[in-house]
Amino acid sequence: MNTSSDFADLDVGYDVPARPGMDESEIQTPCLVLDLDALERNIRKMGDYARAHGMKHRVHGKMHKSVDVAKLQEDIGGAVGVCCQKVSEAEAFVRGGIKDVLISNQVRDPAKIDRLARLPLIGARTIVCVDDIDNVAELSAAAVRHATEIECLIEIDCGADRCGVTDPADVVAIAKAIDAAPGLTFTGIQAYQGAMQHLDSFAARKEKLDIAIAQVKETAAALEAEGLPPSLISGGGTGSYQFESNSGVYNELQCGSYAFMDADYGRILDEDGNRIDKSEWENALFLLTSIMSHAKPDMAVCDAGLKAQSVDSGLPVVFGRDDVKYLKCSDEHGVIADPDGALKINEKLRLVPGHCDPTCNLHDWYVGVRAGKVETVWPVSARGKAY
Amino acid sequence: MNTSSDFADLDVGYDVPARPGMDESEIQTPCLVLDLDALERNIRKMGDYARAHGMKHRVHGKMHKSVDVAKLQEDIGGAVGVCCQKVSEAEAFVRGGIKDVLISNQVRDPAKIDRLARLPLIGARTIVCVDDIDNVAELSAAAVRHATEIECLIEIDCGADRCGVTDPADVVAIAKAIDAAPGLTFTGIQAYQGAMQHLDSFAARKEKLDIAIAQVKETAAALEAEGLPPSLISGGGTGSYQFESNSGVYNELQCGSYAFMDADYGRILDEDGNRIDKSEWENALFLLTSIMSHAKPDMAVCDAGLKAQSVDSGLPVVFGRDDVKYLKCSDEHGVIADPDGALKINEKLRLVPGHCDPTCNLHDWYVGVRAGKVETVWPVSARGKAY
Repeated sequence: MNTSSDFADLDVGYDVPARPGMDESEIQTPCLVLDLDALERNIRKMGDYARAHGMKHRVHGKMHKSVDVAKLQEDIGGAVGVCCQKVSEAEAFVRGGIKDVLISNQVRDPAKIDRLARLPLIGARTIVCVDDIDNVAELSAAAVRHATEIECLIEIDCGADRCGVTDPADVVAIAKAIDAAPGLTFTGIQAYQGAMQHLDSFAARKEKLDIAIAQVKETAAALEAEGLPPSLISGGGTGSYQFESNSGVYNELQCGSYAFMDADYGRILDEDGNRIDKSEWENALFLLTSIMSHAKPDMAVCDAGLKAQSVDSGLPVVFGRDDVKYLKCSDEHGVIADPDGALKINEKLRLVPGHCDPTCNLHDWYVGVRAGKVETVWPVSARGKAY
Repeated sequence: MNTSSDFADLDVGYDVPARPGMDESEIQTPCLVLDLDALERNIRKMGDYARAHGMKHRVHGKMHKSVDVAKLQEDIGGAVGVCCQKVSEAEAFVRGGIKDVLISNQVRDPAKIDRLARLPLIGARTIVCVDDIDNVAELSAAAVRHATEIECLIEIDCGADRCGVTDPADVVAIAKAIDAAPGLTFTGIQAYQGAMQHLDSFAARKEKLDIAIAQVKETAAALEAEGLPPSLISGGGTGSYQFESNSGVYNELQCGSYAFMDADYGRILDEDGNRIDKSEWENALFLLTSIMSHAKPDMAVCDAGLKAQSVDSGLPVVFGRDDVKYLKCSDEHGVIADPDGALKINEKLRLVPGHCDPTCNLHDWYVGVRAGKVETVWPVSARGKAY
């Protein structure tokens, strides 16, 4: 955890939005704020769920890109490590002390493959996804060059309609190639159904996941029949983890957003028809913003626009306020309907971002708050690590 | 300009996407690439236009957030300085050597006002916008405290429906308060019609700007009648600069996107009905991306998703290719329709981002390319400076 002394050289309002010990009212906006109590409850709850269901939990670090949050997920949430999407992002986690990293994505660029093969040298179990048999020789050559071991999951497309193999015969062929390749180990299957995570209805999500589970079972059986049983079958997100956990075939979850939540995930419904941001997960991530213009009586303008948040999944929601509404967004401004003229200049609002992952990637820092005070300021360790 | 020696400590593929002297094919993706020839032509062209029309050009630094680009705009484009939207952003420009900065926005937070008042101490003419008479005493107290001078423009809302005063009587009252306040100088009017910049038709844009110009003239006349003639009337963007330039009342432009262009601006039409990215401004900014999966024959996946670009104004366009199309975007992936199976793994594509400003703010570096070689790598100096 950062201490005040780490902040001696940092200029609050230029380098960093706050300093530990500050009152919440002094935080410079716009910035990301974490409600540490809510964050810890979310992390413990998912950890308990995974443990009760015999699942490992490899938390998705692509969501928060923070070594500190990942370590908290290991320490109090029982996480076995992280997954992430890019080699440079993995490096940020490994440099920060995370010892078990899955890049849940393909790595094809020669320079990136070389960096990937060096990750074990800085102390991490290194796992990567493969969806093309031509990738096997490339990965193997790099692992041999650095005398390291790269574990491989074969990514199957179980509904995301993006990367991934679909035919079990292709999976078997790639697995055999990996198994035969020096420096590589065939470890299992990556099967994340990303496209269904945000379907509102529980039944609609279950229907999609049932299809994915059947596909995973068929693929696992084909591998077993060839003497290559997958030891790891990894997947699952905040909108689906119950299905993977009860599938009888997956043994590892990859949830990310549950820890912070966002407005888009908040709208999906649990089995009883309740919004999951009421029934399952608390909003722990907020975009703190200040009112900076109120030239019209019924409309205020805040300082958080497109450069402080991603609106790809909808506009942010003003947390805990029914009387005001975030209406539109430009680069540096948010227009807020304030029909009662309730908002004052410099008043702070907590926004729940529409989509947490790309919003977090815009910021350099998380300001961790408890009981109205800044307790910690964590870097967004892998912010901008897109290579 | 950066030289190779500046990059000795930077790790290509982790800290930075490229090094000067590299071949374009070696650049690590996703990253922003500037076609330096096109950039220089755009900058010279707008400089020539402003000069020919007797207009000053204060380039909008919020678009690129780059000291190096701003200096190029001063050096070869005759720019008088920059405007930007945040105090921390202004500090980045002033620290980098820009001597004339307008914050085309309101500053209300006490800590930010204090920083604003200190900007002249690090060597810059400092101008800020005001849209509330209560702001005058706050700004004045800070300027007096630091024995500096802050120039003030009164922002009028001429159609953006965001910040700004609408009643000329209110403008006069604020101008009088500024004129009477120690440490402040009343300099003029900020009048940017942001809402019309992206209307496709030239006639539709002109209609909106004619309304704005009438409003500016009425406001200027009201100020003159009170003995407070505005010496600076500033506004105008890439979709409107001709109208302000020929208005007879504006004397300063604030264009930003013309230098880089983006897909959204590219679609608007000039007076003859031609797209402005064909007739007026060249695409100089590209998001360079690589194909990293092609598991389906007619669909490729590239490495640039929501964390490498903002899609608030639409998806990116693949530059110079009619045979492939960017179809959808997730956090780290772009799905590209490739009906002929033309794309190869590791093939690089130049994407024209939907919206340049929030896209640039996601990246740490611009890779400046000429004749297939990396000529320079410029930091996005004010990236993330949102305070």
